[in-house]
Amino acid sequence: MPAASEPERRAVVLLSGGLDSYTAGAIARAEGFGLYALTVAYGQRHRVELEAARRVARALGVVRHVELPLDLAAFGGSVLTGAGDVPRDRAIGEGGIPTTYVPARNTVFLSLALAWAETLGASDIVIGVNAVDYSGYPDCRPEFIRAFESLAALATKAGAGGARFRVLAPLASLSKADIIRRGLALGLDYGLTHSCYDPRPGGRPCGRCDSCVLRAKGFAEAGARDPLVDGA
Amino acid sequence: MPAASEPERRAVVLLSGGLDSYTAGAIARAEGFGLYALTVAYGQRHRVELEAARRVARALGVVRHVELPLDLAAFGGSVLTGAGDVPRDRAIGEGGIPTTYVPARNTVFLSLALAWAETLGASDIVIGVNAVDYSGYPDCRPEFIRAFESLAALATKAGAGGARFRVLAPLASLSKADIIRRGLALGLDYGLTHSCYDPRPGGRPCGRCDSCVLRAKGFAEAGARDPLVDGA
Repeated sequence: MPAASEPERRAVVLLSGGLDSYTAGAIARAEGFGLYALTVAYGQRHRVELEAARRVARALGVVRHVELPLDLAAFGGSVLTGAGDVPRDRAIGEGGIPTTYVPARNTVFLSLALAWAETLGASDIVIGVNAVDYSGYPDCRPEFIRAFESLAALATKAGAGGARFRVLAPLASLSKADIIRRGLALGLDYGLTHSCYDPRPGGRPCGRCDSCVLRAKGFAEAGARDPLVDGA
Repeated sequence: MPAASEPERRAVVLLSGGLDSYTAGAIARAEGFGLYALTVAYGQRHRVELEAARRVARALGVVRHVELPLDLAAFGGSVLTGAGDVPRDRAIGEGGIPTTYVPARNTVFLSLALAWAETLGASDIVIGVNAVDYSGYPDCRPEFIRAFESLAALATKAGAGGARFRVLAPLASLSKADIIRRGLALGLDYGLTHSCYDPRPGGRPCGRCDSCVLRAKGFAEAGARDPLVDGA
């Protein structure tokens, strides 16, 4: 559903193609924001994610969608951008920070969103992090988000002029099941999304990585069917 | 002078090819750091800067030099990445934040340096900002640097484990003349560097942009000759 005319309030939304950022974007849209979607193509193994991001951006009716190539693999450090194996059948939340962690990823992504927001005159950045059913990544915690807002106030022309950037993390306190319930209530089609870290040929989810396990648990707890699994 | 063996303490240094980051890197090297140089090729008009960054990285004997392409021009917003004219003959420090400001640039650069530092196990990031003879950019202020350190502690695996990242800004309280004096005392060859925002054919400095004006003032106050100008 494309926007007929652009709303006055602009927000930059970090859109990965997963269900969290889709839902976060939809919540911001429902609150009246005109959405500017930023997808960072950071050398992730799961490039089908980028195709999902395009589908989701269209479904959200974003004003503009920027896909920004950024070769984080140049630094190494994560199995998501490197050559190691994605862990399977891991107990979520156990064993500390997983090898799928991409160093400082959300810091980099929020910084890029801030650069665009400042250019657009947007005061809001939307990110789909959540700290309940999260995978143990340090840069998904609410205190990280607050620290970024403090930085943004000092980092920018607008901040120097006294304006504040807000980082909206509408999923921060929701469980995966709550996120899915919220999205379904907004009429979202989760069949457009992609979550798997280690997709099979054709982009089918592996069903065994952290991301697949969290997603399946969320749909089960929400009492809903995942169109990616059940509709395949 | 290449490093014979790699020192144990690693620092990521943001290297632009200008005289400030060269001097900041040299100060960190003198303090015993093994340097990992990061140059962001962000679509700047002055691509001769990138060639200067390579010369400077060689002169500093860095362990590794990563040139990371990042198309900040996708967001627009600065004459340094866009099509507008670079201002000339401006009185430095007057007229607020200049049009050469690139939105959130140092936030983006420090975030990328943090990603690499975390991967390397480096605890220090070196940046050549200074707040005395600065051009009015909000993200060169000491309070911005401190806010980034607070963010980094929350943003990373290491931070989650209690470690701290330090952002070294050894030029923060130095005038341009002081920076040049310090660099000359360390034996730096400023003929390797490039400062101009709007270079003439062959990369010669225009002599009239903010950056050229600040540089000329610095050399004059330091009582030194700029090899780029006098040696041409």
